[in-house]
Amino acid sequence: MFLGCQFSLYPMTDRFVEVILGAIDRLQNLGDRLRVESDDLSTLLVGAPEVLFPALQECFVQAAGRSSHLVMNVSLSRGCPGEPDDPLCHSAALGGSVEPTAAGRVSAALGRLGPVAPTGIPAAAQIALYPLGRPDYMAAIGDCIAFIKKSGLHSRAKHFCTRMDGDAAEVFQAIETSFLCFGGHDDHVVLTAVISKGSPSPRPAAG
Amino acid sequence: MFLGCQFSLYPMTDRFVEVILGAIDRLQNLGDRLRVESDDLSTLLVGAPEVLFPALQECFVQAAGRSSHLVMNVSLSRGCPGEPDDPLCHSAALGGSVEPTAAGRVSAALGRLGPVAPTGIPAAAQIALYPLGRPDYMAAIGDCIAFIKKSGLHSRAKHFCTRMDGDAAEVFQAIETSFLCFGGHDDHVVLTAVISKGSPSPRPAAG
Repeated sequence: MFLGCQFSLYPMTDRFVEVILGAIDRLQNLGDRLRVESDDLSTLLVGAPEVLFPALQECFVQAAGRSSHLVMNVSLSRGCPGEPDDPLCHSAALGGSVEPTAAGRVSAALGRLGPVAPTGIPAAAQIALYPLGRPDYMAAIGDCIAFIKKSGLHSRAKHFCTRMDGDAAEVFQAIETSFLCFGGHDDHVVLTAVISKGSPSPRPAAG
Repeated sequence: MFLGCQFSLYPMTDRFVEVILGAIDRLQNLGDRLRVESDDLSTLLVGAPEVLFPALQECFVQAAGRSSHLVMNVSLSRGCPGEPDDPLCHSAALGGSVEPTAAGRVSAALGRLGPVAPTGIPAAAQIALYPLGRPDYMAAIGDCIAFIKKSGLHSRAKHFCTRMDGDAAEVFQAIETSFLCFGGHDDHVVLTAVISKGSPSPRPAAG
C-alpha cells in the first residue's frame, strides 16, 4: 500500500510566505512517521491515514489562525498500482479481514464518525472521489455523496464535486472517511478536496 | 456530452478580492457560449473546450498581472454519466469519426500542439489525469505522462502528478491536450491542474 497526498496552502495575504512556512515547518516533527517533501508547488505527505490526516488538519488550523482567508488544496491517493508498497503506510484502517461491501458502506462510513474536538474554525469544503479501474465506480461515488448528505454537515450538490460546511475538525473527519470507506482496501482511490476558511463571498443557500 | 470545470484563483495578496473579481467578471462577456456560476469556493464553467480553455487562460493572465504570486486550481471533467448532454458542449474536438487509439494517442497529442502567442508569464503546473470506469486506465495515464515529457515543456515526475514549466500559453495548451486526447470521445475523464506564477520558493532541478 502506498498512501499519501500533495497539498498546498493558499493564504490570501501579503504575509503568505510566513503563514505557509509557519504551518508546514511543524511537519518536520513527524519525521519518522510521515514522509514530507515540499517544493514551490505543493508538499508531499506519505504515511498512514491516522498520522497523515491529523497533520493535514493541524497545518490548516495553524495557517487559518494567521490568515483571515485561507484555502487548502489536497489531492489524496491510495493504492496506485504504479507506486511501491511502503511500510510507513500500513494501517489498520485499510487492513484486516473486513472489506467494505457496496451494501453496507454508507452505514459503515457513518459509523466511523465520532465526536471530535472542535477547532472553532468554520470551514467550507468541496470534494470529489475518483475510484479508478472499476466499471462500477459511479455507485461508489453515489454512496459517498449519500454519506456526506447524512453526515450532518450542511451539504450542497455542485457539478463535479460535493460541498460540505462545518467546523474544520468535522470537515477533515468527513474527508478522511470518504477517502477510506468507498473502495476496497487495495483499490486505487483518489480524492481531491478544497477546504476554505473566511471567504468574504456570500455562502450559497443549502440545497 | 457534458464538459466543464470548477476553478478557483488564489492571489497571495491582501488585495485578493479585487484581483479575483477583476478576472472572473470578464467571463460574463462570454454569456451565450459558456455557462458561468460562481460561489464562495469556485467558479463553474460549462461549454466547449475551444471556448472554455481560452477563457481559463485569460482569467489566469488577468489575475497574474495584478498579483506577484498567483495560483489557479482547476478540476476539469468530461463525459460524466451522471450529467445531461448539453448542446453548449458540442465540439469537433470530441466528435467526428476518428477516435484516439492507444497506439497513436501520444503522437496525436503531440500533433495537436502548435505555435501559441506567448503571454510572457512563466508558469509552473502540476496535473493529474483520471480516466474513469476503465480497467486499462493506467496505460492512458502513462501515455499522457509520455506526451508531457515529449512536449518540450520542462517536466519532472512527482508522486501523484506530473509537473511542467513554460510560458502560461504553452502550459494551458498542454493541459487542454492532455484532457482531450487520453480517453475515448465519450469516456468519462477528469483532469486536475494547479497552475502557479511567481512562487518565491526555489524551483526544483529538472529530473
